[in-house]
Amino acid sequence: MSEPFRIGLLGHGTVGGAFETLLEQRAGHVAAITGLLPEISGILTRSRGDFDEILEHSDLVVELIGGLEPAREYVLRAMRAGRHVVTANKQLLSHHGEELWAAAREHGVQLRFEASVAGVVPVIRVLQESLAGAHVDRIHGIVNGTTNYILSEMARTGCSYGDALADAQRLGYAEADPTDDVNGKDAAAKMAILARLAFDTPVHIDQVTYEGIEQITADDMEYADEFGLGLKLIGTAERIDGRLAVRVHPAFLYSGHPLASVHGPFNAITVESEAITEITMSGPGAGGPQTASAVLGDVISAMIPPASTPETTQALQIVDDVESAFYLHMEVADHPGVLAQVAQILGEHGASIKSVVQTGLGERARLAMVMHPLLESQFFAAVDRIASLDFLRSPPRAIRVIEEEFV
Amino acid sequence: MSEPFRIGLLGHGTVGGAFETLLEQRAGHVAAITGLLPEISGILTRSRGDFDEILEHSDLVVELIGGLEPAREYVLRAMRAGRHVVTANKQLLSHHGEELWAAAREHGVQLRFEASVAGVVPVIRVLQESLAGAHVDRIHGIVNGTTNYILSEMARTGCSYGDALADAQRLGYAEADPTDDVNGKDAAAKMAILARLAFDTPVHIDQVTYEGIEQITADDMEYADEFGLGLKLIGTAERIDGRLAVRVHPAFLYSGHPLASVHGPFNAITVESEAITEITMSGPGAGGPQTASAVLGDVISAMIPPASTPETTQALQIVDDVESAFYLHMEVADHPGVLAQVAQILGEHGASIKSVVQTGLGERARLAMVMHPLLESQFFAAVDRIASLDFLRSPPRAIRVIEEEFV
Repeated sequence: MSEPFRIGLLGHGTVGGAFETLLEQRAGHVAAITGLLPEISGILTRSRGDFDEILEHSDLVVELIGGLEPAREYVLRAMRAGRHVVTANKQLLSHHGEELWAAAREHGVQLRFEASVAGVVPVIRVLQESLAGAHVDRIHGIVNGTTNYILSEMARTGCSYGDALADAQRLGYAEADPTDDVNGKDAAAKMAILARLAFDTPVHIDQVTYEGIEQITADDMEYADEFGLGLKLIGTAERIDGRLAVRVHPAFLYSGHPLASVHGPFNAITVESEAITEITMSGPGAGGPQTASAVLGDVISAMIPPASTPETTQALQIVDDVESAFYLHMEVADHPGVLAQVAQILGEHGASIKSVVQTGLGERARLAMVMHPLLESQFFAAVDRIASLDFLRSPPRAIRVIEEEFV
Repeated sequence: MSEPFRIGLLGHGTVGGAFETLLEQRAGHVAAITGLLPEISGILTRSRGDFDEILEHSDLVVELIGGLEPAREYVLRAMRAGRHVVTANKQLLSHHGEELWAAAREHGVQLRFEASVAGVVPVIRVLQESLAGAHVDRIHGIVNGTTNYILSEMARTGCSYGDALADAQRLGYAEADPTDDVNGKDAAAKMAILARLAFDTPVHIDQVTYEGIEQITADDMEYADEFGLGLKLIGTAERIDGRLAVRVHPAFLYSGHPLASVHGPFNAITVESEAITEITMSGPGAGGPQTASAVLGDVISAMIPPASTPETTQALQIVDDVESAFYLHMEVADHPGVLAQVAQILGEHGASIKSVVQTGLGERARLAMVMHPLLESQFFAAVDRIASLDFLRSPPRAIRVIEEEFV
């Protein structure tokens, strides 16, 4: 029986609710790796709960109420009382970060904030820990999912800014009042936090120059296409002659840039440094369960620094035969019925053809196809039979195909 | 004056040498954030150094000799003597991981191994810490830079496997004996480590099915193109009905897949989980300074768990005016000399045109151009002057352009 680890939850909106659900689902797993069983010891909302009482019964406080006050007061009081704090509050940290981090150091507690920037994309931990020793030259980030969704839609469909915004609102990617997203202020707060960590310099949101996407036209998108460029709202923090520039503005990217292929509501951050060249992290930048996952990762780190790799708690059976989609390539004699025979054998083994290309004539005739997923053993059994057909001019060639589920 | 933190270095090849250099450069910064000044207390190579003596004078041991023995023995002895260990040794961990992690737990020391998989791409830390609470469904990885370079070249130039391999060897992306890279074994070792962490189940390299890229032909690449597919050597670890499949094989990816755009010697890993949807991390998978950076991140974490955000040690001046490349769009009257006048003004402010498109006639004539980088204040001064030209039909529109330096 694990000891309990008590979590006081401030705020119970989309992320707060998702965190409560996720914690219930994963509590057993967390107990297995940390030795402590996490539980919600109290919830504070506008209409219920008492902060002092929750604080008294918590080992750690999760702050998800957002905004500056009373979030700042609660976070400070929790740390002064010796509690670790996990927060997703970008406004709070971009305004009062230095005060809060100093309080954490003073009281010997952890203040973790992965969810404050780019949702579950682990950029905070990577900057603070993996790259703690790095001399970072530049960060580029797509750190606002609303604007990235709007720009992606404008590029994809040629529609206007207004139409894309309405579409984003309908799908829940933009709020009823999208001002702080579309004018760049939300991204500016996040860039202030990233710049602070990467360049080891205090950065307040007021020091970040920002510009939004409200002025972008369908026309700009069209010309961009001609130049081979894609348009994104880009946050930049970069070292320039020993000084630091932190900005957010619409910018065109050449197609080879790692951020150019980040579409829809996804976020992504590129960190450049002479020693590491460049690393890129991407993933969903918002969403209840996604942000809650980032909060949970922080909670576990605060529960017990994973100084060592815990003993395995699972012993999943390792399997060989799995379902895959396949590309199948055959050099064939050019006579009638070839495709029919191949399709017949594939069908008998449960393999279904998704697309097919037949090319060449006579000595150069070829069949290439992509199959829907099926158990590999069945597919290879079909290929073995196909290999023995007399119109094959060489052994058939099979390569797996991986489909993308989330984009 | 900071206390010293003594590092015993086992191995002094490409990565070992780069680590020594990097540590010298960054020691002051590390001391500022940890309070301890790291220094190399001894180096063991085949021809010099004594392990016992190095161990005695070290707080932490960095193992970069590779292979199974004597690396295993040294790592075990260091941990039994109470020393933290940082290693880049994928073979060691994919064969003897459970024994080594158990020893770390038993002796209360840290065994860190970020550099063992995908160089500086922080996948180990993210799986072990950020995603410690996640229920991972699947990992896809491009974890071998040699094969990714070869396949990228085959796709880009249409050349044969043999030609691309020779090219990779010439450029240092493939070794003289590339067997373990091209046959998939190197990737299999890395996937064993990732699967162990993501699925909390012991995984030995012998349980990983692998297939290499030696059989891939230029033909396959050509057909793939017709289907809109790109070919990569993909490591996969996935949960299937409560069991675990870990494999490495060539696979086609649809162009929307986050790994499809990872080219050249880069590595990338995608982690899928219902709660997080999908996150992707990419960066250089090898290289001395890159791998050394991963080692340094681990060393700092072992020196002092970054429980709190350290006080800033820099106070870089925040600047506003920086150099940018620009796209400039103008609706103009359709008469001779328009481009010349615009170019004249741009030139007077130091702005140089990289590419230009002129379209439309009469009432719809437009000029769109991309400029080489220049100081923004200079560019906007030019735009202000251009805006006052009488042949402009509406205000000129300027958007920044970001160029990719590393691909």
